[in-house]
Amino acid sequence: MNFVQPEVLAGGVVIVIDAIRASTTMCTALANGARAIVPVLTAKDARATKARLGDEVLLGGERGGVRIEGFDLDNSPRSYTSDRIRGRTIIFTTSNGTAGLLHAKRAQRVLVGSLVNVDAVARAVAHDERPVHILCCGTRNEVSLDDCLPAGAMVEKLVRAGRNTTADDSASLVLHAWRDASRDVRAAFAESRGGRNMVRIGLGQDVDICASLDSVPIAPEFHVQAGAISAS
Amino acid sequence: MNFVQPEVLAGGVVIVIDAIRASTTMCTALANGARAIVPVLTAKDARATKARLGDEVLLGGERGGVRIEGFDLDNSPRSYTSDRIRGRTIIFTTSNGTAGLLHAKRAQRVLVGSLVNVDAVARAVAHDERPVHILCCGTRNEVSLDDCLPAGAMVEKLVRAGRNTTADDSASLVLHAWRDASRDVRAAFAESRGGRNMVRIGLGQDVDICASLDSVPIAPEFHVQAGAISAS
Repeated sequence: MNFVQPEVLAGGVVIVIDAIRASTTMCTALANGARAIVPVLTAKDARATKARLGDEVLLGGERGGVRIEGFDLDNSPRSYTSDRIRGRTIIFTTSNGTAGLLHAKRAQRVLVGSLVNVDAVARAVAHDERPVHILCCGTRNEVSLDDCLPAGAMVEKLVRAGRNTTADDSASLVLHAWRDASRDVRAAFAESRGGRNMVRIGLGQDVDICASLDSVPIAPEFHVQAGAISAS
Repeated sequence: MNFVQPEVLAGGVVIVIDAIRASTTMCTALANGARAIVPVLTAKDARATKARLGDEVLLGGERGGVRIEGFDLDNSPRSYTSDRIRGRTIIFTTSNGTAGLLHAKRAQRVLVGSLVNVDAVARAVAHDERPVHILCCGTRNEVSLDDCLPAGAMVEKLVRAGRNTTADDSASLVLHAWRDASRDVRAAFAESRGGRNMVRIGLGQDVDICASLDSVPIAPEFHVQAGAISAS
């Protein structure tokens, strides 16, 4: 909720959320057997990284919600099926999510969170003694409901695990919002701006996938030094 | 939720909320018969304005939650009793709330909102055809739960009045949070950082006053050209 400066995250654990769709797609890809995901800021960076890593790697991501020209994969979780990506490294760039990951790179530990892996992420950090920050990527500097609701679901789990989550009011805000919206989270995701944008370009099915609480049992970890995200 | 730039507010209606305590105190003062409130940024500005306006005016406000040296009144709604302030103009400066008001001064219409006057403010703007922005002052660039919950309560009223509130996700976020927290809003205010700060300095009673939904039936309006807030 607050525009966090990278130095605030230094030394802590950061959970980066871009639920519609980058985080969900990364979780899905790793659950379906991708070896690793390399997040980069731009399509140009992606092509340069592929030139360095070799033809075995795949290019994935979006601009304006659709596949980037010359890329192998778009940013839909439905595209990252086991037969397409098992054992492969994917260089990945999206409008907001990959920037959020790179914003967090001064943290000691960076995880990819979304609604599909709330439980896995909460378990992964519940007993980590460092401060835990939840970074909601949002869209063009505006808050996204679809990022805040998974954040609230994580806060709920962390409260139950005995963590103190009252450090700032944004944790309480998303927790209250989650408690109300979780009565029908698919409707809440569909009403979000990101959800409506997806429906408008014919990708409403992806919104339902992104709203499937705890459907992916992994907590992807971004190994900042290596520049790659793996299943943990 | 978003750090709004002043130019975004130009031409619209802005409701400025600093519920614990500046907005609540201003509403109370006007309900108890104060003639006008002149918001200023600093204690120095306040003294200079008093020198210009004459000895009849009162100085009110806080720094660090307590009365400023030489000021007549602090920032507690309990201090603004009818016998002290009826008919008087009050020059007012607080840590966050008055800055929020001055941030909104490019808007065409500026109202003071808090939990105590949700209904009055919602009625005042429901049929205003200009865009309505809700500006939550927060604390030192961080979101405050106690500002977001009145914002959610106002969104709920505006939805019922037929206004479209889906322009951005922050309205949906505070609406969901309000729907949950309104089951016990006093507890939510007490759990907020602002609420806890008040309790710590012995002002817990003020938090209960600030959490009293619709206890003040006025919608104070900030007349920007005149530099003064009046009962409308």
